[in-house]
Amino acid sequence: MSVAPLRVGLLGLGTVGQGVIRVLQRNADEITRRVGRPVVVTHASARDTSKAREVSLEGITILTDPMDIAAKADVDVVVELIGGTTYARDLVLAAIARGKPVVTANKALLALEGNAVFSAAREKGVLVGFEAAVAGGIPVIKAIREGLAGNRIEALAGIINGTCNYILTQMTEKGQAFADALADAQRLGYAEADPTFDVEGVDAAHKLTILASIAFGMPLNFDAVAVEGITKVTPQDIKIAQALGYRIKHLGIAKRTDSGAELRVHATLIPEDKLIAKVDGVLNTVLLQGDAVGQMGLYGRGAGGDATASAVVADLVDVARSIGAEARHLVPALAFQPDAVRALPVLPLDQVASAHYLRINVADETGVLKAITAILAELDISIEAILQKEPRGGEDATVAVITSVIPESRFNQAVARVRSLPFVREDVSRFRVEHF
Amino acid sequence: MSVAPLRVGLLGLGTVGQGVIRVLQRNADEITRRVGRPVVVTHASARDTSKAREVSLEGITILTDPMDIAAKADVDVVVELIGGTTYARDLVLAAIARGKPVVTANKALLALEGNAVFSAAREKGVLVGFEAAVAGGIPVIKAIREGLAGNRIEALAGIINGTCNYILTQMTEKGQAFADALADAQRLGYAEADPTFDVEGVDAAHKLTILASIAFGMPLNFDAVAVEGITKVTPQDIKIAQALGYRIKHLGIAKRTDSGAELRVHATLIPEDKLIAKVDGVLNTVLLQGDAVGQMGLYGRGAGGDATASAVVADLVDVARSIGAEARHLVPALAFQPDAVRALPVLPLDQVASAHYLRINVADETGVLKAITAILAELDISIEAILQKEPRGGEDATVAVITSVIPESRFNQAVARVRSLPFVREDVSRFRVEHF
Repeated sequence: MSVAPLRVGLLGLGTVGQGVIRVLQRNADEITRRVGRPVVVTHASARDTSKAREVSLEGITILTDPMDIAAKADVDVVVELIGGTTYARDLVLAAIARGKPVVTANKALLALEGNAVFSAAREKGVLVGFEAAVAGGIPVIKAIREGLAGNRIEALAGIINGTCNYILTQMTEKGQAFADALADAQRLGYAEADPTFDVEGVDAAHKLTILASIAFGMPLNFDAVAVEGITKVTPQDIKIAQALGYRIKHLGIAKRTDSGAELRVHATLIPEDKLIAKVDGVLNTVLLQGDAVGQMGLYGRGAGGDATASAVVADLVDVARSIGAEARHLVPALAFQPDAVRALPVLPLDQVASAHYLRINVADETGVLKAITAILAELDISIEAILQKEPRGGEDATVAVITSVIPESRFNQAVARVRSLPFVREDVSRFRVEHF
Repeated sequence: MSVAPLRVGLLGLGTVGQGVIRVLQRNADEITRRVGRPVVVTHASARDTSKAREVSLEGITILTDPMDIAAKADVDVVVELIGGTTYARDLVLAAIARGKPVVTANKALLALEGNAVFSAAREKGVLVGFEAAVAGGIPVIKAIREGLAGNRIEALAGIINGTCNYILTQMTEKGQAFADALADAQRLGYAEADPTFDVEGVDAAHKLTILASIAFGMPLNFDAVAVEGITKVTPQDIKIAQALGYRIKHLGIAKRTDSGAELRVHATLIPEDKLIAKVDGVLNTVLLQGDAVGQMGLYGRGAGGDATASAVVADLVDVARSIGAEARHLVPALAFQPDAVRALPVLPLDQVASAHYLRINVADETGVLKAITAILAELDISIEAILQKEPRGGEDATVAVITSVIPESRFNQAVARVRSLPFVREDVSRFRVEHF
């Protein structure tokens, strides 16, 4: 066995990049004992080479252009932590073209360009590790791709954006409005200055795209994901959901049904006694439903330098083992053999069946329930739970219902008709409900 | 790539064996798409070949002596589901001697004979897969051995015996006594006719032995595990624990401290707001503490034909990929390279530091608290929580305390002195407390 170190070229020296260096240094002995050879960062790129870092860069050659590292002969594996989908793509493809395995935490790149990246890697017979791209340190890619390899995976649902989960948890525990919880999250570093990608669900949709592909054996198909964020969730809805025995969580959901796949990201009511409803704060969790394993889940830290580095280093260990192995010995990037990855029709939202939550505020209570229940009955929508609150102080009266599982198109009709009732206020609120 | 099927020889046609056949048949298409070749059971052993089974045995050659399969030339991999540690050991070693990879769910065999088994497998360059040996379908072996390969794993704690978890959950939810909950579990098939191995903690200790080895890089050392079951847990203790904000769970715990490893299996009080405290019924869960990933957990079905088969088949997929690969491409059986597996001193229980729960029933309340707190103060034991219940009806008064973290030897002294107080009843109850 070779005892020469695995030489890692690190593109990007931000939080995660420094985490990778720190973890590899701190655990050098343990990692060497596992791998049989040291894993060492020999090169790193940083735009500002003079900036002070929290880790020792001794022995690491720092370059300003990451391309100089991706193309370097004396680097065995490239870790891409630049982010973005343009230069990052060029870097990853350049490394692969030179026969170098790649490890990346870049979910946007994989969700949008992954099919091309994996195809290039396959041709060169190199691994592209991306455990860090979804749910930080939680080894969910490995769990799906290898741990559940015997299953037909029927569904998965994940709290895969820590920013959204933190904000919703604060809104639930403190009764805060979205904007206030967001401001707190920004102050604590849990949300970016421009939080759009997180709170509008785009980041979760990137991750869901990856999870759905490896679970169902379909090509990466980000454009097919229905994406909603959490900006419409109000403290009032959270309170009503609690009164009905539910929590509101932002979920990425992928299901496989007879008519096709569902890929959707949105705020969702979940029964409060489910474990997934109890994963709070910045934690992430993924629930998996396989035909053999039944339901199983993972939870842990979805972000942060060290937690994400944990996943990057796990991939580096896999890479160290894979170098020189024939393709048949490698785990395929998308879990299924490339020639067995098959497109699945993705259902448009209005064909998706689920239970729904509807909350309306009404000017005057009389006749409201009767009118609403009449509309639902006419559309053959059963009511699973209902809550009516009398007006108090200057507030309106409130009616909230949870429906049975119905096609969304039918629920849309119901909402349109309820909205047009004379006593109903503007801000009708609706969310999907999942019981798992 | 070879498209010849991977030929599986199945030793044992019980619940799990039939589950393996069922899952491989039902998911044949998906599994082939993942592996690149079919995975097919060609031979199986059963003591009674005429017995009716719930799965189709068409195309499978059934033999009565499993050794005839373990030694067969036209079997590529042997799945050992016989159980026990004598003939099972011979079978596994015979298969390895013939260069066949082995997949086993046999935690007793690995805990007791694993060092020899893995050594033999290493010499022959074949995999021994044992994902099914711990926590059924939950891929916890893979999570520790590969997913957290970048971490120094500091501690783990698991609900790894479904029988104990079911009984404790019933006792908690219904107020049942241990014997009644056990009888229910037996009626439902969650406990064996002779439940000793489960309720006395031996099964959990087998599993903990395996988890600790792959987490810490130490040889399998079953004899070093301190083993307690759940037979001393009473409904009264469960109620008092709840009043103090705790649940009682049966845990396998492994920790690495500066002075050595702790390996222990026992009923434990856990704060009720921890996710691990909320994993109820027959479910299993494992909590992992790594220096990079922080805390993460997995949960799911720890037993049952299909769930265990899920893990067996995942191992078969790994085996299919590994055949013909050089040793450097394989994941080492105990996570660390064989020459890097190092014995760790295991602390005797009286040197283990933890918080403790002590409950005493007393004949007369006067002076009790003062006497108990005086003893604890003299031994420099802080009280973190205390509950005193006045006598009601014919019942005694009760005092329960939760201590700070102290060496167990000191707590033992305190218990001895409390016991000798004149008003204290016979049945003093004590359990360790973990806050995670």
